Amino acid sequence: MRDFTADHRWLSINTATVRKQRGQDWPLLQILDACAARGIRAVSPWRDQVHAAGLAATARAVKSHGFELSGYCRGGMFTYSSDAGRQAVRDDNRRALDEACELGAACLVLVVGGLPGALAGRPAHKDLAAARAQVAESVAALLTDARERGMPLAIEPLHPMYAADRACINTLEQALDLCDALDPGRSGAIGVAVDAYHVWWDPKLAQQIARAGRERLLALHVCDWLVPTTDLLEDRGMMGDGVIDLRGLRALVEAQGYAGYSEVEIFSAKNWWQRDGGEVLDTCIQRHRDCV
Amino acid sequence: MRDFTADHRWLSINTATVRKQRGQDWPLLQILDACAARGIRAVSPWRDQVHAAGLAATARAVKSHGFELSGYCRGGMFTYSSDAGRQAVRDDNRRALDEACELGAACLVLVVGGLPGALAGRPAHKDLAAARAQVAESVAALLTDARERGMPLAIEPLHPMYAADRACINTLEQALDLCDALDPGRSGAIGVAVDAYHVWWDPKLAQQIARAGRERLLALHVCDWLVPTTDLLEDRGMMGDGVIDLRGLRALVEAQGYAGYSEVEIFSAKNWWQRDGGEVLDTCIQRHRDCV
Repeated sequence: MRDFTADHRWLSINTATVRKQRGQDWPLLQILDACAARGIRAVSPWRDQVHAAGLAATARAVKSHGFELSGYCRGGMFTYSSDAGRQAVRDDNRRALDEACELGAACLVLVVGGLPGALAGRPAHKDLAAARAQVAESVAALLTDARERGMPLAIEPLHPMYAADRACINTLEQALDLCDALDPGRSGAIGVAVDAYHVWWDPKLAQQIARAGRERLLALHVCDWLVPTTDLLEDRGMMGDGVIDLRGLRALVEAQGYAGYSEVEIFSAKNWWQRDGGEVLDTCIQRHRDCV
Repeated sequence: MRDFTADHRWLSINTATVRKQRGQDWPLLQILDACAARGIRAVSPWRDQVHAAGLAATARAVKSHGFELSGYCRGGMFTYSSDAGRQAVRDDNRRALDEACELGAACLVLVVGGLPGALAGRPAHKDLAAARAQVAESVAALLTDARERGMPLAIEPLHPMYAADRACINTLEQALDLCDALDPGRSGAIGVAVDAYHVWWDPKLAQQIARAGRERLLALHVCDWLVPTTDLLEDRGMMGDGVIDLRGLRALVEAQGYAGYSEVEIFSAKNWWQRDGGEVLDTCIQRHRDCV
Protein backbone atom coordinates (compact mmCIF):
# COMPACT_ATOMS: atom_id res chain seq x y z
CA MET A 1 0.00 0.00 0.00
CA ARG A 2 1.35 3.38 -0.95
CA ASP A 3 2.43 5.80 1.75
CA PHE A 4 0.34 8.97 1.47
CA THR A 5 1.59 10.58 4.68
CA ALA A 6 4.68 12.26 3.27
CA ASP A 7 3.25 14.18 0.32
CA HIS A 8 0.16 14.64 -1.81
CA ARG A 9 1.35 13.39 -5.15
CA TRP A 10 -1.64 11.01 -5.40
CA LEU A 11 -4.26 13.59 -4.47
CA SER A 12 -6.79 14.68 -7.06
CA ILE A 13 -9.36 17.40 -6.50
CA ASN A 14 -12.84 16.95 -7.87
CA THR A 15 -13.65 20.55 -8.64
CA ALA A 16 -17.18 20.31 -7.22
CA THR A 17 -15.46 20.35 -3.83
CA VAL A 18 -14.79 24.07 -4.24
CA ARG A 19 -17.36 24.99 -6.84
CA LYS A 20 -19.22 27.70 -4.95
CA GLN A 21 -17.58 29.22 -1.96
CA ARG A 22 -19.68 31.48 0.26
CA GLY A 23 -22.41 31.67 -2.34
CA GLN A 24 -20.16 32.63 -5.25
CA ASP A 25 -19.12 30.32 -8.07
CA TRP A 26 -15.38 29.85 -8.01
CA PRO A 27 -14.47 29.89 -11.73
CA LEU A 28 -12.80 26.70 -12.89
CA LEU A 29 -9.67 28.35 -14.25
CA GLN A 30 -9.10 30.00 -10.87
CA ILE A 31 -9.62 26.65 -9.14
CA LEU A 32 -7.02 25.11 -11.42
CA ASP A 33 -4.57 27.92 -10.63
CA ALA A 34 -5.15 27.40 -6.90
CA CYS A 35 -4.60 23.65 -7.20
CA ALA A 36 -1.42 24.11 -9.23
CA ALA A 37 -0.09 26.63 -6.74
CA ARG A 38 -0.36 23.93 -4.05
CA GLY A 39 1.43 21.27 -6.01
CA ILE A 40 -1.75 19.31 -6.67
CA ARG A 41 -1.09 17.19 -9.74
CA ALA A 42 -4.56 16.01 -10.72
CA VAL A 43 -8.13 17.25 -10.89
CA SER A 44 -11.52 16.01 -12.00
CA PRO A 45 -13.70 18.83 -13.35
CA TRP A 46 -17.46 18.86 -13.79
CA ARG A 47 -18.92 19.46 -17.19
CA ASP A 48 -20.89 22.55 -16.25
CA GLN A 49 -17.74 24.14 -14.86
CA VAL A 50 -15.86 23.29 -18.06
CA HIS A 51 -18.65 24.69 -20.20
CA ALA A 52 -18.62 27.93 -18.20
CA ALA A 53 -14.86 28.27 -18.60
CA GLY A 54 -14.84 27.04 -22.19
CA LEU A 55 -13.54 23.65 -23.28
CA ALA A 56 -10.54 24.98 -25.22
CA ALA A 57 -9.51 27.32 -22.41
CA THR A 58 -9.83 24.51 -19.88
CA ALA A 59 -7.76 22.18 -22.04
CA ARG A 60 -5.07 24.83 -22.34
CA ALA A 61 -5.01 25.39 -18.57
CA VAL A 62 -4.85 21.67 -17.90
CA LYS A 63 -1.93 21.35 -20.30
CA SER A 64 -0.03 24.38 -19.10
CA HIS A 65 -0.31 23.28 -15.45
CA GLY A 66 0.60 19.72 -16.40
CA PHE A 67 -2.50 18.32 -14.68
CA GLU A 68 -3.68 14.79 -15.06
CA LEU A 69 -7.45 14.27 -15.00
CA SER A 70 -8.40 11.42 -12.67
CA GLY A 71 -11.79 11.47 -14.38
CA TYR A 72 -14.32 13.69 -16.08
CA CYS A 73 -17.61 14.30 -14.26
CA ARG A 74 -19.83 13.21 -15.76
CA GLY A 75 -21.78 11.31 -18.33
CA GLY A 76 -24.87 9.25 -17.69
CA MET A 77 -28.41 10.26 -16.71
CA PHE A 78 -29.41 7.60 -19.21
CA THR A 79 -33.07 7.13 -18.38
CA TYR A 80 -35.74 8.74 -20.53
CA SER A 81 -39.44 8.64 -21.14
CA SER A 82 -39.62 9.47 -24.85
CA ASP A 83 -37.79 8.68 -28.08
CA ALA A 84 -36.60 12.28 -28.22
CA GLY A 85 -35.26 11.88 -24.71
CA ARG A 86 -33.42 8.76 -25.70
CA GLN A 87 -31.70 10.48 -28.60
CA ALA A 88 -30.84 13.54 -26.49
CA VAL A 89 -29.21 11.28 -23.89
CA ARG A 90 -27.18 9.53 -26.53
CA ASP A 91 -26.02 12.78 -28.14
CA ASP A 92 -25.16 14.39 -24.84
CA ASN A 93 -23.09 11.43 -23.72
CA ARG A 94 -21.17 11.42 -26.98
CA ARG A 95 -20.34 15.07 -26.39
CA ALA A 96 -19.19 14.20 -22.87
CA LEU A 97 -16.91 11.54 -24.34
CA ASP A 98 -15.45 14.02 -26.80
CA GLU A 99 -14.83 16.52 -24.02
CA ALA A 100 -13.17 13.86 -21.88
CA CYS A 101 -10.88 13.04 -24.79
CA GLU A 102 -10.07 16.70 -25.42
CA LEU A 103 -9.11 17.09 -21.76
CA GLY A 104 -7.17 13.83 -21.62
CA ALA A 105 -9.25 12.35 -18.80
CA ALA A 106 -8.44 8.92 -17.41
CA CYS A 107 -12.10 7.96 -17.70
CA LEU A 108 -15.60 9.33 -18.18
CA VAL A 109 -17.49 8.87 -14.91
CA LEU A 110 -21.09 7.71 -15.36
CA VAL A 111 -23.90 8.61 -12.97
CA VAL A 112 -26.55 6.56 -14.66
CA GLY A 113 -29.80 8.27 -13.65
CA GLY A 114 -32.85 7.08 -11.73
CA LEU A 115 -36.52 6.97 -12.58
CA PRO A 116 -37.06 9.35 -15.51
CA GLY A 117 -38.32 12.69 -14.25
CA ALA A 118 -37.69 11.91 -10.59
CA LEU A 119 -34.86 14.39 -10.21
CA ALA A 120 -37.32 17.12 -11.15
CA GLY A 121 -39.82 15.71 -8.66
CA ARG A 122 -42.06 14.25 -11.39
CA PRO A 123 -41.23 10.56 -11.79
CA ALA A 124 -42.72 9.18 -14.99
CA HIS A 125 -43.25 5.75 -13.42
CA LYS A 126 -42.21 3.49 -10.53
CA ASP A 127 -40.60 0.71 -12.52
CA LEU A 128 -37.02 0.61 -11.29
CA ALA A 129 -36.30 -2.54 -13.27
CA ALA A 130 -37.32 -0.76 -16.47
CA ALA A 131 -35.03 2.16 -15.62
CA ARG A 132 -32.21 -0.28 -15.04
CA ALA A 133 -32.86 -1.91 -18.40
CA GLN A 134 -32.64 1.50 -20.10
CA VAL A 135 -29.34 2.10 -18.35
CA ALA A 136 -27.92 -1.21 -19.48
CA GLU A 137 -28.96 -0.53 -23.05
CA SER A 138 -27.61 3.01 -23.00
CA VAL A 139 -24.26 2.03 -21.50
CA ALA A 140 -23.93 -0.69 -24.13
CA ALA A 141 -24.48 1.84 -26.88
CA LEU A 142 -22.11 4.36 -25.34
CA LEU A 143 -19.44 1.72 -24.92
CA THR A 144 -19.21 1.44 -28.70
CA ASP A 145 -18.53 5.16 -28.92
CA ALA A 146 -16.12 4.98 -26.01
CA ARG A 147 -14.10 2.14 -27.53
CA GLU A 148 -13.77 4.08 -30.77
CA ARG A 149 -12.32 7.00 -28.84
CA GLY A 150 -10.22 4.95 -26.43
CA MET A 151 -11.95 6.57 -23.46
CA PRO A 152 -12.77 4.19 -20.56
CA LEU A 153 -16.23 4.36 -19.00
CA ALA A 154 -16.36 4.30 -15.19
CA ILE A 155 -19.77 3.38 -13.83
CA GLU A 156 -20.18 4.98 -10.42
CA PRO A 157 -22.60 3.04 -8.23
CA LEU A 158 -24.42 5.64 -6.15
CA HIS A 159 -25.62 5.17 -2.59
CA PRO A 160 -29.07 3.53 -2.49
CA MET A 161 -30.57 6.77 -1.15
CA TYR A 162 -30.14 8.12 -4.70
CA ALA A 163 -31.83 5.18 -6.42
CA ALA A 164 -35.00 7.13 -7.21
CA ASP A 165 -33.59 10.29 -8.67
CA ARG A 166 -29.88 10.06 -9.49
CA ALA A 167 -28.68 6.54 -10.16
CA CYS A 168 -30.38 3.18 -10.18
CA ILE A 169 -27.04 1.38 -10.11
CA ASN A 170 -26.49 1.20 -6.38
CA THR A 171 -23.93 -1.46 -5.55
CA LEU A 172 -20.57 -2.49 -6.87
CA GLU A 173 -21.97 -5.94 -7.51
CA GLN A 174 -24.67 -4.52 -9.75
CA ALA A 175 -22.19 -2.30 -11.63
CA LEU A 176 -19.78 -5.17 -12.11
CA ASP A 177 -22.55 -7.43 -13.35
CA LEU A 178 -23.15 -4.87 -16.10
CA CYS A 179 -19.44 -4.55 -16.84
CA ASP A 180 -19.13 -8.31 -17.15
CA ALA A 181 -22.13 -8.51 -19.44
CA LEU A 182 -20.77 -5.81 -21.76
CA ASP A 183 -17.08 -6.57 -21.60
CA PRO A 184 -16.49 -10.17 -20.59
CA GLY A 185 -12.90 -9.95 -21.76
CA ARG A 186 -12.08 -7.29 -19.14
CA SER A 187 -10.55 -5.13 -21.83
CA GLY A 188 -10.25 -2.01 -19.68
CA ALA A 189 -12.88 -0.19 -21.75
CA ILE A 190 -15.39 -0.23 -18.89
CA GLY A 191 -15.12 -0.45 -15.13
CA VAL A 192 -16.21 1.30 -11.95
CA ALA A 193 -15.52 4.44 -9.98
CA VAL A 194 -15.40 3.43 -6.32
CA ASP A 195 -16.64 6.34 -4.23
CA ALA A 196 -16.23 5.76 -0.50
CA TYR A 197 -19.41 7.69 0.30
CA HIS A 198 -21.53 5.48 -1.90
CA VAL A 199 -20.11 2.05 -1.08
CA TRP A 200 -18.64 2.13 2.43
CA TRP A 201 -21.72 0.50 4.00
CA ASP A 202 -21.80 -2.50 1.62
CA PRO A 203 -21.34 -5.87 3.34
CA LYS A 204 -19.95 -7.18 0.05
CA LEU A 205 -17.47 -4.33 -0.42
CA ALA A 206 -14.26 -6.32 -0.01
CA GLN A 207 -15.58 -9.22 -2.05
CA GLN A 208 -16.69 -7.03 -4.94
CA ILE A 209 -13.51 -4.94 -5.02
CA ALA A 210 -11.59 -8.20 -5.30
CA ARG A 211 -13.93 -9.28 -8.07
CA ALA A 212 -13.42 -5.97 -9.87
CA GLY A 213 -9.69 -6.40 -9.98
CA ARG A 214 -7.26 -3.99 -11.52
CA GLU A 215 -8.93 -3.90 -14.93
CA ARG A 216 -12.24 -2.63 -13.54
CA LEU A 217 -11.00 -0.23 -10.85
CA LEU A 218 -10.84 3.02 -12.77
CA ALA A 219 -11.21 5.64 -10.05
CA LEU A 220 -11.26 6.08 -6.28
CA HIS A 221 -13.26 8.93 -4.76
CA VAL A 222 -13.09 9.90 -1.11
CA CYS A 223 -14.92 12.05 1.42
CA ASP A 224 -16.57 10.96 4.67
CA TRP A 225 -19.95 9.96 6.10
CA LEU A 226 -20.97 12.24 8.97
CA VAL A 227 -23.06 11.20 11.96
CA PRO A 228 -25.57 12.64 11.94
CA THR A 229 -25.96 13.42 8.24
CA THR A 230 -28.40 16.29 7.85
CA ASP A 231 -28.98 16.34 4.09
CA LEU A 232 -29.12 13.54 1.55
CA LEU A 233 -27.05 15.36 -1.05
CA GLU A 234 -24.97 18.20 0.33
CA ASP A 235 -23.75 17.09 3.75
CA ARG A 236 -20.69 15.06 2.87
CA GLY A 237 -17.81 15.22 5.29
CA MET A 238 -14.12 15.98 4.93
CA MET A 239 -11.96 12.89 5.23
CA GLY A 240 -11.45 12.12 8.91
CA ASP A 241 -14.60 13.86 10.11
CA GLY A 242 -16.87 10.84 9.71
CA VAL A 243 -17.03 7.10 10.13
CA ILE A 244 -15.61 5.69 6.90
CA ASP A 245 -12.46 3.59 7.22
CA LEU A 246 -10.83 5.31 4.26
CA ARG A 247 -7.43 3.74 4.70
CA GLY A 248 -9.05 0.32 4.84
CA LEU A 249 -10.88 1.03 1.61
CA ARG A 250 -7.72 2.21 -0.10
CA ALA A 251 -5.95 -0.93 1.06
CA LEU A 252 -8.64 -3.01 -0.64
CA VAL A 253 -8.35 -1.25 -4.01
CA GLU A 254 -4.56 -1.10 -3.92
CA ALA A 255 -4.44 -4.82 -3.13
CA GLN A 256 -5.96 -5.27 -6.59
CA GLY A 257 -3.28 -3.14 -8.19
CA TYR A 258 -5.02 0.21 -8.28
CA ALA A 259 -2.27 2.80 -8.46
CA GLY A 260 -4.18 5.93 -9.48
CA TYR A 261 -5.27 9.05 -7.69
CA SER A 262 -7.40 9.45 -4.61
CA GLU A 263 -9.95 12.01 -5.73
CA VAL A 264 -11.59 14.21 -3.13
CA GLU A 265 -15.24 14.95 -3.89
CA ILE A 266 -17.18 16.79 -1.19
CA PHE A 267 -20.60 18.42 -1.51
CA SER A 268 -21.04 20.43 1.65
CA ALA A 269 -23.50 23.30 1.49
CA LYS A 270 -23.29 24.35 5.13
CA ASN A 271 -19.66 23.73 5.93
CA TRP A 272 -16.96 23.46 3.26
CA TRP A 273 -18.77 25.49 0.61
CA GLN A 274 -19.01 28.30 3.17
CA ARG A 275 -15.25 28.61 3.55
CA ASP A 276 -12.45 30.18 1.55
CA GLY A 277 -11.59 27.88 -1.34
CA GLY A 278 -7.87 27.95 -0.58
CA GLU A 279 -8.55 26.85 2.99
CA VAL A 280 -10.61 23.94 1.68
CA LEU A 281 -7.82 22.86 -0.67
CA ASP A 282 -5.24 23.12 2.11
CA THR A 283 -7.47 20.98 4.33
CA CYS A 284 -7.89 18.39 1.56
CA ILE A 285 -4.10 18.11 1.28
CA GLN A 286 -3.66 17.67 5.02
CA ARG A 287 -6.47 15.13 5.39
CA HIS A 288 -5.25 13.25 2.33
CA ARG A 289 -1.98 12.73 4.17
CA ASP A 290 -3.46 12.06 7.60
CA CYS A 291 -6.64 10.09 6.88
CA VAL A 292 -6.53 8.53 3.43
CA MET B 1 -52.32 -12.34 -4.53
CA ARG B 2 -54.89 -11.15 -2.04
CA ASP B 3 -57.32 -8.42 -2.99
CA PHE B 4 -56.86 -5.47 -0.63
CA THR B 5 -59.17 -3.10 -2.50
CA ALA B 6 -62.42 -4.13 -0.87
CA ASP B 7 -61.59 -3.85 2.82
CA HIS B 8 -58.73 -3.35 5.26
CA ARG B 9 -58.71 -6.64 7.07
CA TRP B 10 -54.98 -7.11 6.36
CA LEU B 11 -53.98 -3.63 7.48
CA SER B 12 -51.85 -3.22 10.58
CA ILE B 13 -50.88 0.11 12.08
CA ASN B 14 -47.40 0.57 13.45
CA THR B 15 -48.18 2.99 16.25
CA ALA B 16 -45.18 5.20 15.51
CA THR B 17 -47.23 6.39 12.54
CA VAL B 18 -49.42 8.43 14.88
CA ARG B 19 -47.16 8.72 17.90
CA LYS B 20 -47.02 12.49 18.20
CA GLN B 21 -49.61 14.53 16.42
CA ARG B 22 -49.10 18.27 16.23
CA GLY B 23 -46.39 18.14 18.85
CA GLN B 24 -48.37 16.14 21.41
CA ASP B 25 -47.82 12.49 22.20
CA TRP B 26 -50.91 10.53 21.32
CA PRO B 27 -51.17 8.01 24.19
CA LEU B 28 -51.03 4.40 23.05
CA LEU B 29 -54.32 3.36 24.62
CA GLN B 30 -56.08 6.17 22.76
CA ILE B 31 -54.38 5.09 19.53
CA LEU B 32 -55.64 1.56 20.10
CA ASP B 33 -59.17 2.85 20.68
CA ALA B 34 -59.01 4.90 17.48
CA CYS B 35 -57.76 1.89 15.50
CA ALA B 36 -60.47 -0.37 16.91
CA ALA B 37 -63.14 2.19 16.13
CA ARG B 38 -62.11 2.00 12.46
CA GLY B 39 -62.19 -1.76 12.25
CA ILE B 40 -58.40 -2.07 12.12
CA ARG B 41 -57.56 -5.57 13.31
CA ALA B 42 -53.83 -5.40 13.95
CA VAL B 43 -51.22 -3.04 15.34
CA SER B 44 -47.50 -3.02 16.05
CA PRO B 45 -46.63 -0.89 19.06
CA TRP B 46 -43.27 0.58 20.00
CA ARG B 47 -41.74 -0.29 23.33
CA ASP B 48 -41.52 3.25 24.64
CA GLN B 49 -45.22 3.73 23.95
CA VAL B 50 -46.02 0.47 25.74
CA HIS B 51 -43.87 1.45 28.70
CA ALA B 52 -45.62 4.81 28.95
CA ALA B 53 -49.05 3.14 28.87
CA GLY B 54 -47.98 0.23 31.08
CA LEU B 55 -47.43 -3.29 29.81
CA ALA B 56 -50.38 -4.84 31.66
CA ALA B 57 -52.78 -2.10 30.61
CA THR B 58 -51.61 -2.43 27.00
CA ALA B 59 -52.05 -6.20 27.09
CA ARG B 60 -55.60 -5.75 28.45
CA ALA B 61 -56.46 -3.24 25.73
CA VAL B 62 -55.04 -5.48 23.02
CA LYS B 63 -57.09 -8.37 24.33
CA SER B 64 -60.31 -6.46 24.82
CA HIS B 65 -60.13 -5.00 21.29
CA GLY B 66 -59.20 -8.40 19.87
CA PHE B 67 -56.09 -7.01 18.16
CA GLU B 68 -53.40 -9.11 16.63
CA LEU B 69 -49.86 -7.75 16.85
CA SER B 70 -48.11 -7.96 13.49
CA GLY B 71 -44.89 -7.38 15.42
CA TYR B 72 -43.38 -5.70 18.43
CA CYS B 73 -41.03 -2.76 17.83
CA ARG B 74 -38.37 -3.37 18.73
CA GLY B 75 -35.41 -5.30 20.04
CA GLY B 76 -31.86 -4.95 18.83
CA MET B 77 -29.33 -2.12 19.14
CA PHE B 78 -26.88 -4.94 19.78
CA THR B 79 -23.56 -3.14 19.38
CA TYR B 80 -21.61 -2.07 22.44
CA SER B 81 -18.19 -0.83 23.44
CA SER B 82 -17.85 -2.31 26.94
CA ASP B 83 -18.64 -5.53 28.81
CA ALA B 84 -21.26 -3.65 30.81
CA GLY B 85 -22.80 -2.52 27.56
CA ARG B 86 -22.87 -6.04 26.27
CA GLN B 87 -24.73 -7.29 29.33
CA ALA B 88 -27.17 -4.37 29.26
CA VAL B 89 -27.98 -5.15 25.62
CA ARG B 90 -28.61 -8.79 26.46
CA ASP B 91 -30.84 -7.98 29.43
CA ASP B 92 -32.82 -5.37 27.56
CA ASN B 93 -33.49 -7.69 24.65
CA ARG B 94 -34.68 -10.42 26.98
CA ARG B 95 -37.15 -7.96 28.46
CA ALA B 96 -38.28 -7.05 24.97
CA LEU B 97 -38.89 -10.74 24.28
CA ASP B 98 -40.92 -11.09 27.45
CA GLU B 99 -43.00 -8.05 26.54
CA ALA B 100 -43.59 -9.40 23.04
CA CYS B 101 -44.82 -12.65 24.59
CA GLU B 102 -47.07 -10.86 27.05
CA LEU B 103 -48.64 -8.92 24.17
CA GLY B 104 -48.92 -11.96 21.92
CA ALA B 105 -46.85 -10.45 19.10
CA ALA B 106 -46.24 -12.37 15.89
CA CYS B 107 -42.52 -11.55 16.15
CA LEU B 108 -39.98 -9.33 17.83
CA VAL B 109 -38.61 -6.94 15.22
CA LEU B 110 -34.85 -6.37 15.47
CA VAL B 111 -33.14 -3.13 14.47
CA VAL B 112 -29.64 -4.33 15.06
CA GLY B 113 -27.67 -1.14 15.74
CA GLY B 114 -24.75 0.51 13.97
CA LEU B 115 -21.34 1.60 15.15
CA PRO B 116 -21.48 1.81 18.94
CA GLY B 117 -22.05 5.40 20.06
CA ALA B 118 -22.80 6.67 16.55
CA LEU B 119 -26.48 7.32 17.24
CA ALA B 120 -25.39 9.76 19.93
CA GLY B 121 -22.93 11.34 17.49
CA ARG B 122 -19.88 9.78 19.17
CA PRO B 123 -18.90 6.63 17.27
CA ALA B 124 -16.48 4.51 19.30
CA HIS B 125 -14.73 3.30 16.15
CA LYS B 126 -15.07 2.93 12.37
CA ASP B 127 -14.93 -0.85 12.14
CA LEU B 128 -18.22 -1.81 10.55
CA ALA B 129 -17.16 -5.45 10.23
CA ALA B 130 -16.58 -5.59 13.99
CA ALA B 131 -20.03 -4.11 14.62
CA ARG B 132 -21.51 -6.73 12.33
CA ALA B 133 -19.70 -9.47 14.19
CA GLN B 134 -21.18 -8.20 17.48
CA VAL B 135 -24.61 -8.25 15.91
CA ALA B 136 -24.21 -11.82 14.73
CA GLU B 137 -23.06 -12.94 18.17
CA SER B 138 -25.85 -11.06 19.93
CA VAL B 139 -28.58 -12.37 17.66
CA ALA B 140 -27.26 -15.90 18.17
CA ALA B 141 -27.49 -15.49 21.93
CA LEU B 142 -30.95 -13.93 21.77
CA LEU B 143 -32.17 -16.69 19.50
CA THR B 144 -31.68 -19.16 22.35
CA ASP B 145 -33.93 -17.04 24.57
CA ALA B 146 -36.40 -16.55 21.75
CA ARG B 147 -36.68 -20.26 21.04
CA GLU B 148 -37.38 -20.95 24.72
CA ARG B 149 -40.23 -18.47 24.59
CA GLY B 150 -41.52 -19.45 21.18
CA MET B 151 -41.16 -15.86 19.96
CA PRO B 152 -39.83 -15.49 16.39
CA LEU B 153 -37.09 -12.94 15.75
CA ALA B 154 -37.52 -10.76 12.67
CA ILE B 155 -34.30 -9.07 11.56
CA GLU B 156 -35.17 -5.84 9.79
CA PRO B 157 -32.51 -4.83 7.27
CA LEU B 158 -32.38 -1.06 7.36
CA HIS B 159 -31.65 1.19 4.42
CA PRO B 160 -27.90 1.66 3.91
CA MET B 161 -28.22 5.33 4.90
CA TYR B 162 -28.66 4.05 8.49
CA ALA B 163 -25.59 1.79 8.45
CA ALA B 164 -23.55 4.10 10.66
CA ASP B 165 -25.99 4.81 13.44
CA ARG B 166 -29.04 2.53 13.41
CA ALA B 167 -28.42 -0.82 11.76
CA CYS B 168 -25.41 -2.38 10.10
CA ILE B 169 -27.56 -5.07 8.51
CA ASN B 170 -28.53 -3.30 5.32
CA THR B 171 -29.72 -5.80 2.75
CA LEU B 172 -32.03 -8.78 2.71
CA GLU B 173 -29.15 -10.90 1.47
CA GLN B 174 -27.07 -9.98 4.51
CA ALA B 175 -29.95 -10.63 6.90
CA LEU B 176 -30.73 -13.96 5.28
CA ASP B 177 -27.09 -15.00 5.42
CA LEU B 178 -27.29 -14.53 9.18
CA CYS B 179 -30.60 -16.40 9.41
CA ASP B 180 -29.14 -19.30 7.45
CA ALA B 181 -26.06 -19.41 9.65
CA LEU B 182 -28.11 -19.49 12.86
CA ASP B 183 -31.05 -21.57 11.73
CA PRO B 184 -30.12 -23.73 8.76
CA GLY B 185 -33.21 -25.85 9.29
CA ARG B 186 -35.50 -22.87 8.58
CA SER B 187 -37.44 -23.61 11.74
CA GLY B 188 -39.42 -20.37 11.76
CA ALA B 189 -37.59 -19.13 14.86
CA ILE B 190 -35.80 -16.41 12.92
CA GLY B 191 -36.50 -14.53 9.72
CA VAL B 192 -36.80 -11.04 8.31
CA ALA B 193 -39.10 -8.05 8.42
CA VAL B 194 -39.32 -6.69 4.87
CA ASP B 195 -39.83 -2.93 5.02
CA ALA B 196 -40.52 -1.38 1.64
CA TYR B 197 -38.70 1.81 2.58
CA HIS B 198 -35.49 -0.02 3.40
CA VAL B 199 -35.34 -2.54 0.57
CA TRP B 200 -37.20 -1.14 -2.43
CA TRP B 201 -33.99 0.00 -4.17
CA ASP B 202 -32.24 -3.37 -3.94
CA PRO B 203 -31.37 -4.91 -7.33
CA LYS B 204 -31.52 -8.31 -5.64
CA LEU B 205 -34.91 -7.73 -4.02
CA ALA B 206 -36.89 -10.31 -5.96
CA GLN B 207 -34.13 -12.87 -5.78
CA GLN B 208 -33.70 -12.52 -2.03
CA ILE B 209 -37.43 -12.56 -1.26
CA ALA B 210 -37.62 -15.82 -3.19
CA ARG B 211 -34.66 -17.10 -1.21
CA ALA B 212 -36.31 -16.08 2.06
CA GLY B 213 -39.41 -18.11 1.33
CA ARG B 214 -42.38 -18.42 3.58
CA GLU B 215 -40.44 -19.56 6.64
CA ARG B 216 -38.29 -16.41 6.74
CA LEU B 217 -40.87 -13.78 5.75
CA LEU B 218 -42.19 -12.71 9.14
CA ALA B 219 -43.43 -9.18 8.49
CA LEU B 220 -44.18 -6.70 5.70
CA HIS B 221 -43.90 -2.97 6.42
CA VAL B 222 -45.04 -0.30 4.00
CA CYS B 223 -44.77 3.44 3.48
CA ASP B 224 -43.31 5.30 0.49
CA TRP B 225 -40.10 6.94 -0.72
CA LEU B 226 -40.66 10.59 -1.58
CA VAL B 227 -38.81 12.53 -4.28
CA PRO B 228 -37.23 14.61 -3.05
CA THR B 229 -36.68 13.20 0.45
CA THR B 230 -35.75 16.06 2.78
CA ASP B 231 -34.70 14.20 5.92
CA LEU B 232 -32.92 10.89 6.39
CA LEU B 233 -35.19 9.73 9.21
CA GLU B 234 -38.49 11.53 9.39
CA ASP B 235 -39.60 12.18 5.83
CA ARG B 236 -41.25 8.92 4.91
CA GLY B 237 -44.22 9.15 2.62
CA MET B 238 -47.77 7.81 2.77
CA MET B 239 -48.34 4.88 0.45
CA GLY B 240 -49.00 6.22 -3.04
CA ASP B 241 -47.18 9.52 -2.53
CA GLY B 242 -43.77 8.22 -3.58
CA VAL B 243 -42.00 5.97 -6.04
CA ILE B 244 -42.15 2.51 -4.47
CA ASP B 245 -44.02 -0.14 -6.41
CA LEU B 246 -45.79 -1.40 -3.28
CA ARG B 247 -48.14 -3.74 -5.05
CA GLY B 248 -45.22 -5.28 -6.87
CA LEU B 249 -43.42 -5.83 -3.58
CA ARG B 250 -46.48 -7.41 -2.00
CA ALA B 251 -46.81 -9.70 -5.01
CA LEU B 252 -43.26 -10.91 -4.41
CA VAL B 253 -43.77 -11.76 -0.74
CA GLU B 254 -47.20 -13.28 -1.30
CA ALA B 255 -45.78 -15.46 -4.08
CA GLN B 256 -43.70 -17.06 -1.33
CA GLY B 257 -46.79 -17.71 0.78
CA TYR B 258 -46.72 -14.66 3.03
CA ALA B 259 -50.28 -14.23 4.26
CA GLY B 260 -49.85 -11.81 7.15
CA TYR B 261 -50.56 -8.13 7.64
CA SER B 262 -49.33 -5.15 5.70
CA GLU B 263 -48.06 -2.89 8.46
CA VAL B 264 -47.99 0.85 7.88
CA GLU B 265 -44.99 2.55 9.46
CA ILE B 266 -44.51 6.22 8.64
CA PHE B 267 -42.18 8.69 10.34
CA SER B 268 -43.16 12.08 9.02
CA ALA B 269 -42.25 15.06 11.15
CA LYS B 270 -43.44 17.77 8.79
CA ASN B 271 -46.51 16.18 7.24
CA TRP B 272 -48.35 13.26 8.82
CA TRP B 273 -47.28 13.96 12.40
CA GLN B 274 -48.70 17.47 11.96
CA ARG B 275 -52.21 16.21 11.28
CA ASP B 276 -55.07 14.89 13.34
CA GLY B 277 -54.37 11.26 14.22
CA GLY B 278 -57.79 10.08 13.10
CA GLU B 279 -57.26 11.68 9.69
CA VAL B 280 -53.94 9.86 9.41
CA LEU B 281 -55.56 6.52 10.24
CA ASP B 282 -58.36 7.12 7.76
CA THR B 283 -55.77 7.92 5.09
CA CYS B 284 -53.84 4.75 5.91
CA ILE B 285 -57.00 2.72 5.40
CA GLN B 286 -57.75 4.35 2.06
CA ARG B 287 -54.21 4.06 0.75
CA HIS B 288 -53.96 0.46 1.95
CA ARG B 289 -56.89 -0.30 -0.32
CA ASP B 290 -55.80 1.87 -3.24
CA CYS B 291 -52.01 1.54 -3.31
CA VAL B 292 -50.90 -1.58 -1.43
